[in-house]
Amino acid sequence: MAGNTFGNVFRITTWGESHGPAVGVVIDGAIPGIAITAEEIQKELDRRKPGQSDVSTSRKESDTVEILSGVFEGKTTGTPISLLIRNTDQNSSSYDDLRDTPRPGHADFGYAEKYGIRDHRGGGRSSGRETAARVAAGAVAKKILTQYGIEVVCHTVQIGKVCADSAIISQFSFDEIKENIETNPVRCADSETAAKMEAEILAAKEKGDSVGGIVEGLIRGVPAGLGEPVFDKLDADLAKAIMSIGAVKGFEIGGGFDAAACCGSEFNDAFEINSENGRIKTVTNNAGGILGGISTGETIRFRAAIKPTPSVSTVQKTVNLKDMTETEIVISGRHDPVIAPRFVPVGEAMAAIVILDHLMRNEALHLSIQK
Amino acid sequence: MAGNTFGNVFRITTWGESHGPAVGVVIDGAIPGIAITAEEIQKELDRRKPGQSDVSTSRKESDTVEILSGVFEGKTTGTPISLLIRNTDQNSSSYDDLRDTPRPGHADFGYAEKYGIRDHRGGGRSSGRETAARVAAGAVAKKILTQYGIEVVCHTVQIGKVCADSAIISQFSFDEIKENIETNPVRCADSETAAKMEAEILAAKEKGDSVGGIVEGLIRGVPAGLGEPVFDKLDADLAKAIMSIGAVKGFEIGGGFDAAACCGSEFNDAFEINSENGRIKTVTNNAGGILGGISTGETIRFRAAIKPTPSVSTVQKTVNLKDMTETEIVISGRHDPVIAPRFVPVGEAMAAIVILDHLMRNEALHLSIQK
Amino acid sequence: MAGNTFGNVFRITTWGESHGPAVGVVIDGAIPGIAITAEEIQKELDRRKPGQSDVSTSRKESDTVEILSGVFEGKTTGTPISLLIRNTDQNSSSYDDLRDTPRPGHADFGYAEKYGIRDHRGGGRSSGRETAARVAAGAVAKKILTQYGIEVVCHTVQIGKVCADSAIISQFSFDEIKENIETNPVRCADSETAAKMEAEILAAKEKGDSVGGIVEGLIRGVPAGLGEPVFDKLDADLAKAIMSIGAVKGFEIGGGFDAAACCGSEFNDAFEINSENGRIKTVTNNAGGILGGISTGETIRFRAAIKPTPSVSTVQKTVNLKDMTETEIVISGRHDPVIAPRFVPVGEAMAAIVILDHLMRNEALHLSIQK
Amino acid sequence: MAGNTFGNVFRITTWGESHGPAVGVVIDGAIPGIAITAEEIQKELDRRKPGQSDVSTSRKESDTVEILSGVFEGKTTGTPISLLIRNTDQNSSSYDDLRDTPRPGHADFGYAEKYGIRDHRGGGRSSGRETAARVAAGAVAKKILTQYGIEVVCHTVQIGKVCADSAIISQFSFDEIKENIETNPVRCADSETAAKMEAEILAAKEKGDSVGGIVEGLIRGVPAGLGEPVFDKLDADLAKAIMSIGAVKGFEIGGGFDAAACCGSEFNDAFEINSENGRIKTVTNNAGGILGGISTGETIRFRAAIKPTPSVSTVQKTVNLKDMTETEIVISGRHDPVIAPRFVPVGEAMAAIVILDHLMRNEALHLSIQK
Repeated sequence: MAGNTFGNVFRITTWGESHGPAVGVVIDGAIPGIAITAEEIQKELDRRKPGQSDVSTSRKESDTVEILSGVFEGKTTGTPISLLIRNTDQNSSSYDDLRDTPRPGHADFGYAEKYGIRDHRGGGRSSGRETAARVAAGAVAKKILTQYGIEVVCHTVQIGKVCADSAIISQFSFDEIKENIETNPVRCADSETAAKMEAEILAAKEKGDSVGGIVEGLIRGVPAGLGEPVFDKLDADLAKAIMSIGAVKGFEIGGGFDAAACCGSEFNDAFEINSENGRIKTVTNNAGGILGGISTGETIRFRAAIKPTPSVSTVQKTVNLKDMTETEIVISGRHDPVIAPRFVPVGEAMAAIVILDHLMRNEALHLSIQK
Repeated sequence: MAGNTFGNVFRITTWGESHGPAVGVVIDGAIPGIAITAEEIQKELDRRKPGQSDVSTSRKESDTVEILSGVFEGKTTGTPISLLIRNTDQNSSSYDDLRDTPRPGHADFGYAEKYGIRDHRGGGRSSGRETAARVAAGAVAKKILTQYGIEVVCHTVQIGKVCADSAIISQFSFDEIKENIETNPVRCADSETAAKMEAEILAAKEKGDSVGGIVEGLIRGVPAGLGEPVFDKLDADLAKAIMSIGAVKGFEIGGGFDAAACCGSEFNDAFEINSENGRIKTVTNNAGGILGGISTGETIRFRAAIKPTPSVSTVQKTVNLKDMTETEIVISGRHDPVIAPRFVPVGEAMAAIVILDHLMRNEALHLSIQK
Repeated sequence: MAGNTFGNVFRITTWGESHGPAVGVVIDGAIPGIAITAEEIQKELDRRKPGQSDVSTSRKESDTVEILSGVFEGKTTGTPISLLIRNTDQNSSSYDDLRDTPRPGHADFGYAEKYGIRDHRGGGRSSGRETAARVAAGAVAKKILTQYGIEVVCHTVQIGKVCADSAIISQFSFDEIKENIETNPVRCADSETAAKMEAEILAAKEKGDSVGGIVEGLIRGVPAGLGEPVFDKLDADLAKAIMSIGAVKGFEIGGGFDAAACCGSEFNDAFEINSENGRIKTVTNNAGGILGGISTGETIRFRAAIKPTPSVSTVQKTVNLKDMTETEIVISGRHDPVIAPRFVPVGEAMAAIVILDHLMRNEALHLSIQK
Repeated sequence: MAGNTFGNVFRITTWGESHGPAVGVVIDGAIPGIAITAEEIQKELDRRKPGQSDVSTSRKESDTVEILSGVFEGKTTGTPISLLIRNTDQNSSSYDDLRDTPRPGHADFGYAEKYGIRDHRGGGRSSGRETAARVAAGAVAKKILTQYGIEVVCHTVQIGKVCADSAIISQFSFDEIKENIETNPVRCADSETAAKMEAEILAAKEKGDSVGGIVEGLIRGVPAGLGEPVFDKLDADLAKAIMSIGAVKGFEIGGGFDAAACCGSEFNDAFEINSENGRIKTVTNNAGGILGGISTGETIRFRAAIKPTPSVSTVQKTVNLKDMTETEIVISGRHDPVIAPRFVPVGEAMAAIVILDHLMRNEALHLSIQK
């Protein structure tokens, strides 16, 4: 059972290789009657596309999306939405010498072992290029979610050794974060920190090296009650969605790893009545908006740890898979010196897909209430 | 679509409430012809059961498992294995006052919002008691995996503010860790650290409080090639499996969150030839045994952050769901002052299930090779 | 990927062997807040249980159901419902000589080839006894469906060479059919035909032989719009559900095989306005209530062809699997001379499960409408 | 949960509307290393494409397939195979007056009720055009199956009132049937009967009417042991696959509905040893190659009842969905006067997909044997 489908009720299937003719996605289960245009999807793709600044690869891809089905007279019909993105800038020749020598830190070795055959050009299926399909599908999910008052934003909180001060970040509203991250190439909510992050990246880039980072995700407007225990808990599905993005090495919800050093009396979020709307809320939000796998109505907050780009230009030890000898490799080609900033739209896309999927799953259960 | 089933080829469905007649699991997809006894399953259940030491709840449950199907003359038949564990020590009366007042840090509020009705006794379905069913299923998975030379162990590396020194832990072999954790109630591989952890727990317990912790998991013997990109990556599925266990707030694979501060040139694991067996290995293992979502053949290493037990005996602010007023709650009953040590067998069970599921999924794909 | 789970949103997993300790089912996805009692489930089980008349086996099973989870204070909670039925009358010794000699017409040979090991006693997992679990789950589905005004009935229309005259049957209302079938052991809506069917069965029984039959299913009250093209069409899922019941060799919807000889101009069902309620209906119902895989609002009508019981007492040719020699077999034990009458509650159960599952699936899609 | 995906291990997702830009399919789970070309897929598409003879529609579609992913240097890589077929002959204007008036016998009404919005042009998603995607995927499945010695053929056995004599048909070998059906436009194995069938169709066509038919499917070379009881029985999954094709109203396996009138002593297939190869076979094959839901190793034989094309040129009664009035409709456009002959490649495709999916599912289970 291969694994190129994600989601249960809102379900996406991505396909395509980095240097094949195209990448794309089929969305099954989109709610009918939602207005959506190619332009709206394109806007999200443009946020992900390469060549946007000096902290990203110089590979140029227009990443133009074509809607092939499921939309009629500008509205979703409830039938599968097929989205196609042609690959245009395929400089395949630079990968010729990588056919039998797996790059350290890349998926090459695993694919060779698993399938016995692989499209080695640009990482083939394991290329970050596959995430364009996710972003396209995520654009549809985001559009639907806005109808229900739900929004997702991701922002960079650490690049290499430069961390955004949480005291500063917590002063920004959700809307400010959304706005601020589009004003700098690292997608950090605080411009001063952003400048330091950019310097950190360029310093690494100059040495032909790369840096890691941490991205935080916020989801607001999620009603209480989403998540399907005991296995398809909302945080478990978010963890899977985020960890399925290449280069992610860790996932936290709410307090995350810091919870280990806490006492129950300090970590628990007390309940109170929101005097403004008479609804139940929690005083603090160490839970990150999810308790027992079910949303509480508070803002969902998660973090993803992203490793440094494995493509570095230093000489690296590797092996030749054909003759099983040790050898060395120097990776040429055009690569991002950091992944986190371009991860932002991908993380948003996957989070939006998880939330919409659970919104629809929860709906099915509540048949009785609508009776 | 409810979420009480986990796995694709090796698939488990758990059921049962803390204070109902029983909890249990149905395993579908167990390989036929594997010898398994109730005693082998019981042994794993005994590692999880309450009342084992002064750092766990005083609730007594014999947790006796009964095999109801799928095993004939001592061997699996390939048909569903139904395992039943009767609940015996149900002191339900102590929960009477929790019917309408959700406990902070517990799933009570989410269940009330989601389902409109819930068995409030002992957390009902959201109780840690459900993990007994996971451990029973995990015992079957572990037994099958041993036939393929694959083993899983979890061990406690942090309790509250007491951290096991990684320099000390890394000196222990896989087998030593497996042995050592059974010699102390916190399941730490290092006995000296274990004593400090125990003291940390008892100090919190005395104050009616609780502490969090971190558990590391190791899986050895996994062949290269397991994992199904792009969504059902091996680490994504491990993340979901571990995050689906109550109280887990974070998941890391290999270098995890520390990867953020690293450079690519230091984080990449170079490939080399193992001179002993002529097979490819990596010099370091920052990847944690998984690259691009596919196992590399190295030991898989993950970590789970576990929050402090939410049941603390201090007075806590909460609300009454019926009349929507603010109120206070004092949680009586018998509770674990820490979750991590009892998490160990549950984490092992879920990890074993993920690995076996992927081993079988990978098998399906390789039809061509066996021809 | 084993196949003991059915349904997507309302999902059942059955387990158990004919001569093991018990059979049972776990239902995941039941709508919360529905009143259900063990007695209601028992009533359906009693319709299926053996030993009801001279046209069924003399095996006696009380088939007493126990609700182990998912129901609290008489109502479903939305968590998995586990139902247990202990096996009591296990006369296993009569199967000893069948260990290595597959019975013609039975699943024995396939199980031996597939799994390499099998519980040969009474057919093990392939026994009709497994359908008790389906009927128990179906009772829950039926109860939920009644809340939405949906009802299912199955009735016998052919036994051996005795066919119910469709002109007579079509005079009975849905309610009359439901009532009439409980007044005779063959579950035929027409008492006169029923007497002839009974005679047909007893004549076969006397010769140690068996007869086949055809059962028709009717589902009323299904709203227009259920079914998920292009693969999970409502009739495709009904076909699978019915064909998954042992001994079924054919499935028809509406006009069925007779459609082959029809012209389009006669087979098409014209649309008109129902003057009573102003809603759209069809003049005829050759479609059987489903067009393009989606319910039209008309009564759904299907038929199942059921083969004669393979257990006959005549001498039959078979082989010995151990020494691969040809041999003969005489089947002793207590067997039904006909399957159709006991198929009736099983067919109703499976049809109810399909309809409820699709009702819930359709709900998920219509999120937009409830906004 | 929408329903545009079929299969579990070999899994296809189709998309596209009759008059949208394209139709297509994503195949996930294809075995890696299998040689496949666009030409091989095209060959199957050409068997389905319209305009082949006077018994099919005069609509012209070149139906040219493009492989967008999953094939590298002429071989499958184990990653998703995306196949694209552009729509070229879209004469949409002829459908303008069908926007609000559902055609009798078509899916129009159900889609309108279900989704609230639909692409009405040429039936949109419910058009037979969608089956082009199935045939393309089926070509890949067929290619893989040939590596394992498994072959599928469908042939027409009834058109309107003209039935092929089973005594004549049974004289043809599997290979002869395969060859013969390509020599006449109705795809009947017997040329004399084919001529009568063609006349039957042309007579209906002349009157602006249409006829139904019955197609038989044969699958040879299937090893014993495929099928996953108790729900995913091989015949249950075949039934669903075939019933999911538009216009199919019935499905039979082996003896089918004739089984109802048989006695067990005549219907049972006795086992014997094949003296040629020493393997177990059955003397007769009333079971149709499947017992208890598991293949026996005999040729699998099924039949599908196909209704007459609903598009007839006579005046038909219908309703206007907008103003809820009764009205009349005359369907113009170019339509097939019969569906059965063009069903043949679609039925073969779906059967091939089911068999391959189960071959791979069975493989997963047999891990233990390969150890």
